[in-house]
Amino acid sequence: MAGIADVARAAGVSKATASRALTGAGYVSEATRTRVQHAAKELGYVPTTSAVSLVTGRTQTIGVVVPNLDRWFFAQVLGGVQEALLERRYDLALYSAPPESDARREMFTHFLARKRFDGVIAVGIEPTAHELERLVDFGKPVVSVGGYDAGTSAVSIDDHAAARIATEHLLGLGHREITFLGGDPDGRQMSFGDARRLAGYWAAMEAAGARGGGRHIPSEVTMPGGYGAAVELLGDRLTRPTALVAVCDEVAVGAIIAARRLGIRVPEHLSVVGIDDHEYADMFSLTTLQQKPDQQGRTAVRLLMAQLEDPATPGSHTYEPSPLIMRNSTAALDDATSAIVTIGR
Amino acid sequence: MAGIADVARAAGVSKATASRALTGAGYVSEATRTRVQHAAKELGYVPTTSAVSLVTGRTQTIGVVVPNLDRWFFAQVLGGVQEALLERRYDLALYSAPPESDARREMFTHFLARKRFDGVIAVGIEPTAHELERLVDFGKPVVSVGGYDAGTSAVSIDDHAAARIATEHLLGLGHREITFLGGDPDGRQMSFGDARRLAGYWAAMEAAGARGGGRHIPSEVTMPGGYGAAVELLGDRLTRPTALVAVCDEVAVGAIIAARRLGIRVPEHLSVVGIDDHEYADMFSLTTLQQKPDQQGRTAVRLLMAQLEDPATPGSHTYEPSPLIMRNSTAALDDATSAIVTIGR
Repeated sequence: MAGIADVARAAGVSKATASRALTGAGYVSEATRTRVQHAAKELGYVPTTSAVSLVTGRTQTIGVVVPNLDRWFFAQVLGGVQEALLERRYDLALYSAPPESDARREMFTHFLARKRFDGVIAVGIEPTAHELERLVDFGKPVVSVGGYDAGTSAVSIDDHAAARIATEHLLGLGHREITFLGGDPDGRQMSFGDARRLAGYWAAMEAAGARGGGRHIPSEVTMPGGYGAAVELLGDRLTRPTALVAVCDEVAVGAIIAARRLGIRVPEHLSVVGIDDHEYADMFSLTTLQQKPDQQGRTAVRLLMAQLEDPATPGSHTYEPSPLIMRNSTAALDDATSAIVTIGR
Repeated sequence: MAGIADVARAAGVSKATASRALTGAGYVSEATRTRVQHAAKELGYVPTTSAVSLVTGRTQTIGVVVPNLDRWFFAQVLGGVQEALLERRYDLALYSAPPESDARREMFTHFLARKRFDGVIAVGIEPTAHELERLVDFGKPVVSVGGYDAGTSAVSIDDHAAARIATEHLLGLGHREITFLGGDPDGRQMSFGDARRLAGYWAAMEAAGARGGGRHIPSEVTMPGGYGAAVELLGDRLTRPTALVAVCDEVAVGAIIAARRLGIRVPEHLSVVGIDDHEYADMFSLTTLQQKPDQQGRTAVRLLMAQLEDPATPGSHTYEPSPLIMRNSTAALDDATSAIVTIGR
């Protein structure tokens, strides 16, 4: 079996350089890294990682903290992180537990305290439990995905701007009775990003002098959650809005399904805008603000690697774009809609 | 900071026993383990895992191989595995890459070959690339989730029986024109479990002498995939079946949405059965065969731990139950439906 010396010889570099190139500990140029990795692959060289760890003090592992796995956003981010780490030959240690659960507390006091990672990517961390600050205290690089940053490096969309643009799109079509749907179920606090979206919505309503037509209807941030809340909201003709800004696409799709069941035509009698560009968006012709969570995951890995190479790299918050994707779930508030609304009142 | 000696003293056991209880290396009774873990928690003892690894040869890490993260089944299994590993204080190393991709090949030749785990849980492994056999060759315990087992320990539902029962339910309601919807998109091979489901469907149709009314319509195994295929299938009145068995709930829900858009009433004019009891099933009143993938993940961890404690433990295939959950998406083939079908022909 090939050793590091064979790899170094084949790549025409010193053993120390070959080792740095393969472990990620210390600087090597991208060209050298590629050459060494190529040589290692050709020779079928597999570093014994325990030995690598002893030499470098590195684990070649990145910890990823997520609240849960069965929501689209988190699964997508995790997918992007996994891809980017595989490319860089890092292992991914997964730490998933719901916020404020016993498992979550245990995760922080026991697992993360073992520090079996070179750095952490923290996805969807909420400010409340000061978890991000605790991660930083472990003394390893931390990158946050999902809005809240606590001064660490971070990547997210601009949630405030996304919801503002969604709302302005509806205002531009003549709507004034615009409800923000989703978040804050059972009076629990909204997530950091969702709260930013709600604030962006209110900012747009205020700026247009339409605050009086605004309203926030809470729901679980899921498709069934959006469906349930929308059935109730839209079932009452007296208070039915002409347009919805949904906190995310899953809630928006739930609302569209609710509207169809109630015989309310989208977009003729109800306009709906989401945020995400979820894989279901196209199937429901949903106009939405697009984000690419897998890309955010990849960006997070890039930011983390920069800090691993040079711990003096200053933290920065990268905002990924979130363009408006026009499909067919929004329409101008025409006379017909107005008439229906008027008759209803 | 508390050491292992302090923990042993507090728990009233030897240092060696305390170490075994905390590392999972070697046998201790459940009662002793609980007592030691309690003492460790009280004292705030965090084992330095590099030292533990040197002593035990164990990594306290379980590798989990999954094809992707954004399908319900895989996310749920992974969630169950994570929970069960957290309880046992094992780290989870995630290895996710799509079958037959470069990343997948790289994962097997490079990452998994590093063997930075004490055992592997392999989710949704397909027989084709002999990946399960390769995992076994690494010489660590392996448990498979999702149907194919290659003689390893495994956990799944009985896919053949689930689809057979779904089909028999429709046959019992008088249906004979029953289509199996989903799988085999673009002529690619069906997954192992999905192929078992299709076989179970055909077995039921054969047994009822209804083979002539049977048909398999391929689709991507997603909600949009089921929607698209169903729009085409149901749009043609001449060949429209009276009932569908969907390969999974996501496809079933896609079909229900397609039916609604086409003005076909479920269950009056079309019965639909799924397999999963997905979180969307209730919202669509979907009758389905329930499985609990998170429970399967937990069972997989239990089977793996048994093999870690005693490598002589024989492999076994655990079949989890998949009961029929009756909601409102199926109905007896009544005269009205028959009439509609007859007129259509």
